Amino acid sequence: MNPIGLVSRSGPERSVVAVEDVRFGQDFVVIAGPCSVESEDQTLAIAREVKGAGARMIRGGVFKPRTSPYAFQGLGLKGLKILKKAREETGLPIVSEVMDTRDVSWMGEYVDVLQIGARNMQNFSLLKEVGKSGKPVLLKRGMHSTLSEWLNCAEYILKEGNSRVILCERGIRTFETYTRNTLDLSAIPALKELTHLPVIVDPAHGTGRASLIPSMSLAAVAAGADGLIVEVHTDPAAALSDGDQSLTPSQFSSLNEKIAALRSFMDGLN
Amino acid sequence: MNPIGLVSRSGPERSVVAVEDVRFGQDFVVIAGPCSVESEDQTLAIAREVKGAGARMIRGGVFKPRTSPYAFQGLGLKGLKILKKAREETGLPIVSEVMDTRDVSWMGEYVDVLQIGARNMQNFSLLKEVGKSGKPVLLKRGMHSTLSEWLNCAEYILKEGNSRVILCERGIRTFETYTRNTLDLSAIPALKELTHLPVIVDPAHGTGRASLIPSMSLAAVAAGADGLIVEVHTDPAAALSDGDQSLTPSQFSSLNEKIAALRSFMDGLN
Amino acid sequence: MNPIGLVSRSGPERSVVAVEDVRFGQDFVVIAGPCSVESEDQTLAIAREVKGAGARMIRGGVFKPRTSPYAFQGLGLKGLKILKKAREETGLPIVSEVMDTRDVSWMGEYVDVLQIGARNMQNFSLLKEVGKSGKPVLLKRGMHSTLSEWLNCAEYILKEGNSRVILCERGIRTFETYTRNTLDLSAIPALKELTHLPVIVDPAHGTGRASLIPSMSLAAVAAGADGLIVEVHTDPAAALSDGDQSLTPSQFSSLNEKIAALRSFMDGLN
Amino acid sequence: MNPIGLVSRSGPERSVVAVEDVRFGQDFVVIAGPCSVESEDQTLAIAREVKGAGARMIRGGVFKPRTSPYAFQGLGLKGLKILKKAREETGLPIVSEVMDTRDVSWMGEYVDVLQIGARNMQNFSLLKEVGKSGKPVLLKRGMHSTLSEWLNCAEYILKEGNSRVILCERGIRTFETYTRNTLDLSAIPALKELTHLPVIVDPAHGTGRASLIPSMSLAAVAAGADGLIVEVHTDPAAALSDGDQSLTPSQFSSLNEKIAALRSFMDGLN
Repeated sequence: MNPIGLVSRSGPERSVVAVEDVRFGQDFVVIAGPCSVESEDQTLAIAREVKGAGARMIRGGVFKPRTSPYAFQGLGLKGLKILKKAREETGLPIVSEVMDTRDVSWMGEYVDVLQIGARNMQNFSLLKEVGKSGKPVLLKRGMHSTLSEWLNCAEYILKEGNSRVILCERGIRTFETYTRNTLDLSAIPALKELTHLPVIVDPAHGTGRASLIPSMSLAAVAAGADGLIVEVHTDPAAALSDGDQSLTPSQFSSLNEKIAALRSFMDGLN
Repeated sequence: MNPIGLVSRSGPERSVVAVEDVRFGQDFVVIAGPCSVESEDQTLAIAREVKGAGARMIRGGVFKPRTSPYAFQGLGLKGLKILKKAREETGLPIVSEVMDTRDVSWMGEYVDVLQIGARNMQNFSLLKEVGKSGKPVLLKRGMHSTLSEWLNCAEYILKEGNSRVILCERGIRTFETYTRNTLDLSAIPALKELTHLPVIVDPAHGTGRASLIPSMSLAAVAAGADGLIVEVHTDPAAALSDGDQSLTPSQFSSLNEKIAALRSFMDGLN
Repeated sequence: MNPIGLVSRSGPERSVVAVEDVRFGQDFVVIAGPCSVESEDQTLAIAREVKGAGARMIRGGVFKPRTSPYAFQGLGLKGLKILKKAREETGLPIVSEVMDTRDVSWMGEYVDVLQIGARNMQNFSLLKEVGKSGKPVLLKRGMHSTLSEWLNCAEYILKEGNSRVILCERGIRTFETYTRNTLDLSAIPALKELTHLPVIVDPAHGTGRASLIPSMSLAAVAAGADGLIVEVHTDPAAALSDGDQSLTPSQFSSLNEKIAALRSFMDGLN
Repeated sequence: MNPIGLVSRSGPERSVVAVEDVRFGQDFVVIAGPCSVESEDQTLAIAREVKGAGARMIRGGVFKPRTSPYAFQGLGLKGLKILKKAREETGLPIVSEVMDTRDVSWMGEYVDVLQIGARNMQNFSLLKEVGKSGKPVLLKRGMHSTLSEWLNCAEYILKEGNSRVILCERGIRTFETYTRNTLDLSAIPALKELTHLPVIVDPAHGTGRASLIPSMSLAAVAAGADGLIVEVHTDPAAALSDGDQSLTPSQFSSLNEKIAALRSFMDGLN
């Protein structure tokens, strides 16, 4: 491994990354919301549902890294304004993906956590820029990345003076085709050996199938994850992106109850 | 997918594979023991320990598929006689790997379950032979295999009239180097969608690191696995194979208590 | 790397593996024939064609490692008798895959070279058995195998006293889906650094597409391969296996001319 | 595959991307130079050498995408001024990597071709920006990317009105450890089936070992590549980056002669 002095764990203490009253690394944090912000009605409806079901933060993409240039690219500024309303109404902090160094500064006024997506994990210019911004950063693992490379990307951010980084395992690319990616849950205990940063899991991108999300969410809790980020949509079949891997509000609500119960059980087990 | 009529799930019923009084697919089954049978003293000592800690079956290799021809190849028949003694003393059934079509018939007299290792998953001659034997078969996933290919290998066994097959996820090969393989826990819920056969998990080969085994074992339970197979050694550092991924008896005992508690909690959750 | 003393290169000398008058490691050897022996008429017709087009050996499978148990499994002994006729009529030596330790001894009476397929690369019992047989062995790379693991498998054969081993690169499994596998041509110069054994290439399994075979065959020649093994069928669309990656006799003939010309050019270049 | 209308091949015509008097897709183009611009002396010395050896373009990185934030990050603007001098002195056009949307516009004044590196292949903001710039773009394949995804990234650029795109295969990530990546030469004929854009090969990153570069370069020519990009350093052992995969000027000169001879032979073969 390369020297990753700032992110390395030097003792039993683990970092707590605070976002308003949410404490990653201390609380178990469930982030939920639509893959894409599609409209004000859609986003506010989902925001209310996920808040009611116990989510601590809202997710929603306005800049979408789509494989094809002809796929829906996100609402941009209009979407950010919608997210701001969702925050005002629910009181929940917001996480949204930033894709361009030029957007880091002003986007930070609309959202609470800047997400670096898997495809930009090694976009080093962007890492430096979010490092300088001082905003909390949700850093997804690249689909082709070793743990060492991922931690070096976190080091890029900390090196700029920003230690508010949350790591997010979201599956790596393998030869398997039944799932969209292969969710690497061993990354959770492995990262706990290597770094003090909190680690959450994205079971939606990790599997690509809504039917597998409940099991993998519970497995992530049992493996020691600090939180989960899931996609919820009031009408998955009509979603502009990632409908196959979105839960309905009632599925999410049911899952979230189990997650809370399991987390509580696990706290007593150790 | 190819037609996999015999292994395919056609309704909510799941198969129960009985080995003596152990019921895969019904009970949660923990199999434990040394990677290799090294001596009578070592094997009997470990067998007593794992029985005391709640293991339901004993594992131990006597034919070892080693990367190098100069590595320890296993004790062969001598090892099988030791395993037989371990069974007599503990009353626990035995699983051991078979590597050669010529060994299937006579090896079945010493062990209760024949294991097909990852490297032989697509050794179709061997699959047909264990199919004809009628003995229960523990079929490990190849390190390079899709779920579809794996299920087709099980179909080879069932096609010969033997439906007593237990699937075992043991990690797939990826670019990651911190872990020996990448344990694919999403295979558990995925297989439950695809097949009626029981599914267990091998967290030792799946990670290659003893420190990651407890977390991944609990995650496997939460994901819905039907059992676990773990490596236990009274002196891991002196083991002739796989010492890095072996638990001590006391580590195993502590883990097994947690597994039982979590399994019981999970039964109440669903 | 593990110690691989017998296969390791210790100087500039390279091994020559002689099969009748064919000299792997000295001549450039093109092996051609059907994926499967389907009938006497089909096999003899193809055998005549490939001989006429300059092939030095004939290939044809009679034991077929098929993903599904319901796919054509090969003609077995009947197929071997057909291959024997093809040899008598054309005078060309024969290579065919062996899948079972019990078949090694008697199968050696029908064929000149025993092939170990990719799925059996780490079938160590089979490796030992072909090692003891003394017959030339064509050892395919496993689709999941590092060069180090592959060479260790060759070492298993040499350790039994049989040094007549030919290595065959046939593609490794990756995430790419346009091709069936990813043909790793860098294995050719890499193996020449590591071992004295001859190295040939299978562009059919390496790509899974007939349209890519000519380019990849020429690339293999330029990279320094000692030979090629290709699938030729008089009616690829009707082939019982691998029709998508089979050449017609006229395509093969045209390709073989180019191969010979390029090989001759390459000899003058170095 | 997604719709990739602009990059798709619709007939036998192939695009020619002109950079000064260099014609990708028509001429065979060898690009050479240091991995990183380290100093004026180093860069000019190498530029003279590679021009003398027949290179048609010069490469040199000034913004370096390094795994670790503590590794040499490149000279930035100072490096661009050095590259400009190299162009003035040799008359050869320059290619250099751009990593930040904010640099696209002004960097275009110093270099002739903007390179998008493997880690930024799916940096869609950057793709759009180089699309708008109208400058020729060298688009490297992501180390985790399918051909379909890669072509969709090219489509992002063409969609902005810029059709001057050159594709560059540079190896994909697999489990193999002897080589740094696995160079996928089958991408060359595959891309010729799918797109009209020129395709070149980077054997240095594709293998990570200088000793394998000559063989793989010749293989790329035989497979039908439109060019090569190689790293040359007057003192590879002292290079600030990628010394293990850099050729000396005399190695490059010798290789370039063989490449030219082989290319000429291949033209006559088809």
